[in-house]
Amino acid sequence: MQDPSLSAVIKPEVRGLNAYTLKHFDADVKLDQNENPYELPLDIKREVVDRVLRRPWARYPEFVPAAVISTLSKFTGWTQEGILVGNGSNELIQASLNVSLGPGRRCAMPQPTFTLYKLMATTLQAEVMPVFLDSENLTFNVDKLIEASRRADVVVVCSPNNPTGGLLEREALIALLKNAKGLVLLDEAYHEFSGQTALPLLSEHRHLIVLRTFSKAMSMAGLRFGYMMAHPEIAREVYKSKLPYNVNIFTLAAAEIVIENRSALNRGIDALIRERDRVFAELERREAVRAFPSKANFILIRTARPARELFDGLYSHGVLVRDVSAYPLLDRCLRVSIGTPEENDRFLAALDRVLETN
Amino acid sequence: MQDPSLSAVIKPEVRGLNAYTLKHFDADVKLDQNENPYELPLDIKREVVDRVLRRPWARYPEFVPAAVISTLSKFTGWTQEGILVGNGSNELIQASLNVSLGPGRRCAMPQPTFTLYKLMATTLQAEVMPVFLDSENLTFNVDKLIEASRRADVVVVCSPNNPTGGLLEREALIALLKNAKGLVLLDEAYHEFSGQTALPLLSEHRHLIVLRTFSKAMSMAGLRFGYMMAHPEIAREVYKSKLPYNVNIFTLAAAEIVIENRSALNRGIDALIRERDRVFAELERREAVRAFPSKANFILIRTARPARELFDGLYSHGVLVRDVSAYPLLDRCLRVSIGTPEENDRFLAALDRVLETN
Repeated sequence: MQDPSLSAVIKPEVRGLNAYTLKHFDADVKLDQNENPYELPLDIKREVVDRVLRRPWARYPEFVPAAVISTLSKFTGWTQEGILVGNGSNELIQASLNVSLGPGRRCAMPQPTFTLYKLMATTLQAEVMPVFLDSENLTFNVDKLIEASRRADVVVVCSPNNPTGGLLEREALIALLKNAKGLVLLDEAYHEFSGQTALPLLSEHRHLIVLRTFSKAMSMAGLRFGYMMAHPEIAREVYKSKLPYNVNIFTLAAAEIVIENRSALNRGIDALIRERDRVFAELERREAVRAFPSKANFILIRTARPARELFDGLYSHGVLVRDVSAYPLLDRCLRVSIGTPEENDRFLAALDRVLETN
Repeated sequence: MQDPSLSAVIKPEVRGLNAYTLKHFDADVKLDQNENPYELPLDIKREVVDRVLRRPWARYPEFVPAAVISTLSKFTGWTQEGILVGNGSNELIQASLNVSLGPGRRCAMPQPTFTLYKLMATTLQAEVMPVFLDSENLTFNVDKLIEASRRADVVVVCSPNNPTGGLLEREALIALLKNAKGLVLLDEAYHEFSGQTALPLLSEHRHLIVLRTFSKAMSMAGLRFGYMMAHPEIAREVYKSKLPYNVNIFTLAAAEIVIENRSALNRGIDALIRERDRVFAELERREAVRAFPSKANFILIRTARPARELFDGLYSHGVLVRDVSAYPLLDRCLRVSIGTPEENDRFLAALDRVLETN
């Protein structure tokens, strides 16, 4: 049959999906992607570049990037056999779901949360079980999450949650782990800003997978690096769906050098935490704004104005934020990343200007 | 339930799989991964590095890497809307299979071929339909491939085929496209060495997907870059399973600069083609060796000796090749990448030495 119709060749679940996209906007003050506003020190960048220039580019990276994995193992204390590295943590989330989800399998996740989990689970034809956040405070609905976890093959939790900022407290996580029937994927993309990690729970819970990224606190969003920690038996299975040579020589060099120089990043991270708390306090003082408490490097806000209107108003003042009002429960909400003190001040001033003008 | 057993959380099809792995060997003469022995010119590398140092590393790459896609579109003549770029072509193969395969769907592929296709299709719980090569000449069994394509949701063909080197001739491909019920994924990883591409067939066959890599002829295996060309309607669906920000700023810069300087690579590619034909002629003169005709940058050989013995013998002379004897039909076979003239001479000399010593 020549040129069969699309409906025959693409899975119906995929055809029904909207792709994850992001429209590009140029802006003076870019607070839309939860990036770290502080670049890596130039001497670190030069060291990365020098190392890459000394390596052959025409040769594949090592099959197992032993140096980076060993450095990560020292940094985290977790066994090398339980660590996988990826082209961003997204790749490792995808690999984890690939080996565990299919038709007839269920994936529970809070809603709203990072869009990609649902997209990936749906592509795999799994049943997505949304567990809505508390509609008033947008905090995790722990009881319902635990309830769902008893029937789910995989539970995915982003903590602190994107785009709402709330943390799954340690006790709640332990209760979830005790009840979950299948895998618990904990996306710790923002953990450096929260003062909490599930790392100490790994050794006791072999169905726990902890994911981390270098795109936020680690100032490497452009380089794409993430890693996963799990019981070696789980890591061995997820490995089967991870692409070979998935991290290139440039990113491997950068990741290794950045972990070794981790302390050079601390000042920036501390500054972002202080700024988050300052911006939150500032927002709380504004009657026209509801700010939701955040343990990440962003804050979710709601006003009486349509989100699009506020977004456009801020943008007209050179401030780019994320309109998340299309997410479930997030009517009239915007997500604002924490930038430098100057950038945050510009955001606050623009916000005041826009809210006044109505 | 605490710590559920692995059998409950990982799909049985995945548990049954052996992961794709490659043991690391150091060697003077590295002819095991079909890499290009000629590095990119140093001025190109410096241009890449300079461009990367001018860009922020803490910011995500563009959501759609417009510059690279536009450059690829000019280079290939294919529409930008039908081009996707990936972290190596493997990622785009995986994304294509992710949107088209699942339980109850069938994926036909020649056997033996590149291991990853089967691994990916099996992870997706699809039924793999192996179409064995001609057992004597290891050429494509075109009639059987066409027969299978009538019942398959996806056909994956690597042409020239890895690890055997044979080409799916244009007429055979057209016949396959005319008969295939579903998608035809053509992996052109080695097309630069074959003088043939399916690119001109794309506009007439909207179920054809052409995949290319920069890891072989383009001297960028360490940087991980590949691209896919297909009808925009198909590209739009595959896009849904491609990770966002899948190619980092370093590789994007390198790919763009390398395509612009494509002619600088021609001399090396021509040299490799000449060397392949010279090495093949040399091998044909040796009675103890059967060499299979190749249109790629490697040659498959068979001798009377166990492959492991020959592999070890060559390695003891500093020459690393690939033992592919565990693949179906490839008993006593090794795959030898084409290197520089000096490297190829060392391989031939080592081969003679090892074959004599028995």
